[in-house]
Amino acid sequence: MSKGITSKNEDYSQWYNDIVIKADLAEHSAVKGCMVIKPYGYSIWEKMQAILDQKFKDTGHSNAYFPLFIPKSFFSKEAAHVEGFATECAVVTHYRLKNDGEGNIIVDPDAKLEEELIVRPTSETIIWNTFRGWVQSYRDLPLLINQWANVVRWEMRTRLFLRTAEFLWQEGHTAHATSEEAVAETEKMLDVYADFAENWMALPVVKGKKTPNERFAGALDTYCIEALMQDGKALQAGTSHFLGQNFAKAFDVKFTSKEGKQEHVWASSWGVSTRMIGALIMAHSDDQGLVLPPMLAPIQVVIVPIYKTDEELKAISIFVSGLMPKLKKMGVSVKYDDRDTQRPGFKFAEYELKGVPVRLAIGSRDMENGTVELARRDTREKFTVNQEGLDYYIGNLLEDIQANIYKKAADYRAEHITPANSYDEFKELLDTKAGFITAHWDGTPETEQKIKEETKATIRCIPLDNKLEEGVCIYSGKPSVQRVLFARAY
Amino acid sequence: MSKGITSKNEDYSQWYNDIVIKADLAEHSAVKGCMVIKPYGYSIWEKMQAILDQKFKDTGHSNAYFPLFIPKSFFSKEAAHVEGFATECAVVTHYRLKNDGEGNIIVDPDAKLEEELIVRPTSETIIWNTFRGWVQSYRDLPLLINQWANVVRWEMRTRLFLRTAEFLWQEGHTAHATSEEAVAETEKMLDVYADFAENWMALPVVKGKKTPNERFAGALDTYCIEALMQDGKALQAGTSHFLGQNFAKAFDVKFTSKEGKQEHVWASSWGVSTRMIGALIMAHSDDQGLVLPPMLAPIQVVIVPIYKTDEELKAISIFVSGLMPKLKKMGVSVKYDDRDTQRPGFKFAEYELKGVPVRLAIGSRDMENGTVELARRDTREKFTVNQEGLDYYIGNLLEDIQANIYKKAADYRAEHITPANSYDEFKELLDTKAGFITAHWDGTPETEQKIKEETKATIRCIPLDNKLEEGVCIYSGKPSVQRVLFARAY
Repeated sequence: MSKGITSKNEDYSQWYNDIVIKADLAEHSAVKGCMVIKPYGYSIWEKMQAILDQKFKDTGHSNAYFPLFIPKSFFSKEAAHVEGFATECAVVTHYRLKNDGEGNIIVDPDAKLEEELIVRPTSETIIWNTFRGWVQSYRDLPLLINQWANVVRWEMRTRLFLRTAEFLWQEGHTAHATSEEAVAETEKMLDVYADFAENWMALPVVKGKKTPNERFAGALDTYCIEALMQDGKALQAGTSHFLGQNFAKAFDVKFTSKEGKQEHVWASSWGVSTRMIGALIMAHSDDQGLVLPPMLAPIQVVIVPIYKTDEELKAISIFVSGLMPKLKKMGVSVKYDDRDTQRPGFKFAEYELKGVPVRLAIGSRDMENGTVELARRDTREKFTVNQEGLDYYIGNLLEDIQANIYKKAADYRAEHITPANSYDEFKELLDTKAGFITAHWDGTPETEQKIKEETKATIRCIPLDNKLEEGVCIYSGKPSVQRVLFARAY
Repeated sequence: MSKGITSKNEDYSQWYNDIVIKADLAEHSAVKGCMVIKPYGYSIWEKMQAILDQKFKDTGHSNAYFPLFIPKSFFSKEAAHVEGFATECAVVTHYRLKNDGEGNIIVDPDAKLEEELIVRPTSETIIWNTFRGWVQSYRDLPLLINQWANVVRWEMRTRLFLRTAEFLWQEGHTAHATSEEAVAETEKMLDVYADFAENWMALPVVKGKKTPNERFAGALDTYCIEALMQDGKALQAGTSHFLGQNFAKAFDVKFTSKEGKQEHVWASSWGVSTRMIGALIMAHSDDQGLVLPPMLAPIQVVIVPIYKTDEELKAISIFVSGLMPKLKKMGVSVKYDDRDTQRPGFKFAEYELKGVPVRLAIGSRDMENGTVELARRDTREKFTVNQEGLDYYIGNLLEDIQANIYKKAADYRAEHITPANSYDEFKELLDTKAGFITAHWDGTPETEQKIKEETKATIRCIPLDNKLEEGVCIYSGKPSVQRVLFARAY
């Protein structure tokens, strides 16, 4: 059955878009650059949120909420930050509409704001302006805050989930007494993200540091997790920033140390967004639709009855009503689709499209034989399985599917981390094999920029576990002490 | 110990503000009209969200997310809606800032939007514009959607939680095949809100319908739950609207019925917001601070050790480490505050201020006697209780506290629903006793408006369980068939 999905090999970009639309994850809205996250897509985000939120709480963070709007002048207080964020943004200039007397709704020229407000592209400035009142003494530190919110960065060329003007995210903002503690926090939260990516999203990631060129505007150091998509392009799935004392100085946030001295505090910030849903789709899905790792699948198991008569359906439903509580007790989310408005083949295609990890089909022959037909989404294999012990079988199978999806992505990545020892080799690899390319770089922003301009490849990161290795820069021929990770990226 | 809270009887408004600030619930931000919800206040909102979200899912609703921005022209499509909402609002007119060359960040005049965008004050228009693509056939109905989001309604005179320019809320939006189904949904969600108010917030509410004057802009009928605060003023804690086919017609949302006819769908919308936190504070708290019903308390039980030596602390801590898992297993949230930077008296005052329902204090004498000292926040009573069976004792006590807080509010309300049979009596009651006043009204918007202008009292609702009773309007003397509920309100 054709699901109308463009083949991945034919047009990767169209394939991605087809899956987002046809699996009912999201759609473009009437507002340029803004998406609507549909119920099925949002239910994946809710799972991500619940897991991450618990991880943040387990590491001592509390949620809070800060204003959507930021006064324009706040951006000017941190020099690098203003360059990075106060450019493409939504600017509120008025606070009233009115009827012009001829039936038109117009902006009321008398309701102009004294100072324009920016819809937050990220909240460092408004949060650090607030922290000034929250921190007096070392006893108030560390201050470990997280916010779940919407943010807006004006984008002209948008792609659902991957790049939209408005997106949903979480942003952690922490204040510490020492530089060491702030760096430790920055690294700890990167580990939380990496753990989430690998063990929930089934997405292997490289942990690394960004080059100065690619740092967050206002950070001393930006850490990231970088994943590889099935078209060989990289995707940054999360970032964690060591902000030094930049924002504390810009917003005058000081504390009295144990020794009675007044000092500026040290900061981190870190975030992941609905972009992760885009990564999840691009990393695992196939030409039949979405492939979801069980740990993030809103529905893990779907059961479809196959029957001709009401009696047959009744017998199947009695069996299912015994099975479902057992699965739920094991924490498995299960749906019984006994709609009589759709045929089994339609349902099979629909759940395949939506990436449900396990599908059970039960017919009258199965009921006689004490079996079910089981299909796993990741490998598209079908098995006949005994009804007895089915709950445990499914529990194990879901773990197996999770591991298999991870392994497939890890194998792909292992095959797509390639060293390049000359610029020609580098360029050829980019155009043929793609993936991550490890190469020597002279450490200068100029060389990085030239390579980017000429090849569209960027330095994704300097891996944290990088080995030192003497060599020469593929571009300039200057000496280098380590390889860095290049790729074309989303 | 003075907590610096103004007495409720002295200045109710200042008392409220003192509690919000001193219990660390929220504060004003640098952006006029916008608040910062602090971690403790936000943790109450998280409890509310979790409970309501489960109730919405249990009644068949799915969450989704729609854009923050709404094109200006959308508001003009529903005549009543534009009057109600497209007035005081945040208007985005530009999408870029730039450096003017002299170091100033200014709005880029070249980046003016073709059509202004309004920051959503409520989402009917953008959602119904989206629903057009989601509904084709009766098989697509009912469509039961909820959104958790921030909204902005420009307010000059703000009060933390009760009235702020930006606030957090949920908005349900549903589409149905028939008028009857849409009305049934509207009433069902009102019941969900009433159940939440009474059984979680411990807040007795009157369920009723608004008069046409007080209806949501664009609704055929607005249902509400009305609560009474301790100063005798009413507070609308939630609303549920029957929208008829108004938005379906404005945005051309039609479906093919079972009979093959093209018909416009029928709609409801319903919402509650962070305003409920304001209601929670004002309904139950006292001059010592917040009083939280256990069902919504982020910390239900706090344990404070009282010791002179490390040995004493150790013995207490061993006992506590046995008690805490038992309480947690019962679903009780418990905190052990063994900070050595603060004295017990300071801690007692802090948890009283924050409304923690049960406080245990354990000293060396208690350890010898096998007892603990227990203080309940609602009545401020103290007891000596045996350590044996303490977990069950606390479980029962929390239920008792929840019931007692509800009873206190219900008793207050019962004493403050007063009939008035003349306009003089009505006005005197408003100025002396306040509360809800039941009185006859002639059913005209003109009379309602006159009474509002002269007394600041509004018709809160026509209670759903109202008895018919012949009488004459207190204002006009015209005949009336039922009493309606008046009050001055937040």
